Amino acid sequence: MDIPPFKLNGRVWIEIGDEKVLGHGRVELLERIHASGSIRQAALQMKMSYKQAWDLVNHINSGFKQPLVISKRGGKGGGVAIVTPFGLEVISEFKSIQQKFFDFLSENGKK
Amino acid sequence: MDIPPFKLNGRVWIEIGDEKVLGHGRVELLERIHASGSIRQAALQMKMSYKQAWDLVNHINSGFKQPLVISKRGGKGGGVAIVTPFGLEVISEFKSIQQKFFDFLSENGKK
Repeated sequence: MDIPPFKLNGRVWIEIGDEKVLGHGRVELLERIHASGSIRQAALQMKMSYKQAWDLVNHINSGFKQPLVISKRGGKGGGVAIVTPFGLEVISEFKSIQQKFFDFLSENGKK
Repeated sequence: MDIPPFKLNGRVWIEIGDEKVLGHGRVELLERIHASGSIRQAALQMKMSYKQAWDLVNHINSGFKQPLVISKRGGKGGGVAIVTPFGLEVISEFKSIQQKFFDFLSENGKK
């Protein structure tokens, strides 16, 4: 009656004022905005609508009470977006937590 | 530009063969079956249908390749269900992992 080997899996996310503001998917969105300089491109890559991506960005910005992404609409290529230094700091904090979480998951699975 | 205080939240679950077999909700179902001796009662308490509860129980039993719940349909009260000693062991293992996970979450939030 031994418990068979299993893998532990899971997710972590950041909440501010009881609201989820940042998790794995949103961090990926921020990283793709940072890499492409474009919310539209990032949305495309993640197969979400432009509006969805905008809503997420606004939700993240207002959750942290300061912008992680600044964007300028319009212009030739349809506007540019940059991830602020504060945004980069938050991404890095989340990834460091996530790495610790991955370690936790593999330590607590059963070989 | 300091990161504001935040709460870390999350979920963990057990996978066997890349399939989720047990998480927070299913453990609650098992505990309620154990307490009430009835899948029907447990389902009612968790506001799920009897069929949903049965499907979950079957999924858990087959995932672990041995029964965590044994049930007898029919009879006066509509059948009884018991959580096996193996099932109790799995519940206890999951709760111990979950407690460590709660500690992880509070250690990694930001005061």
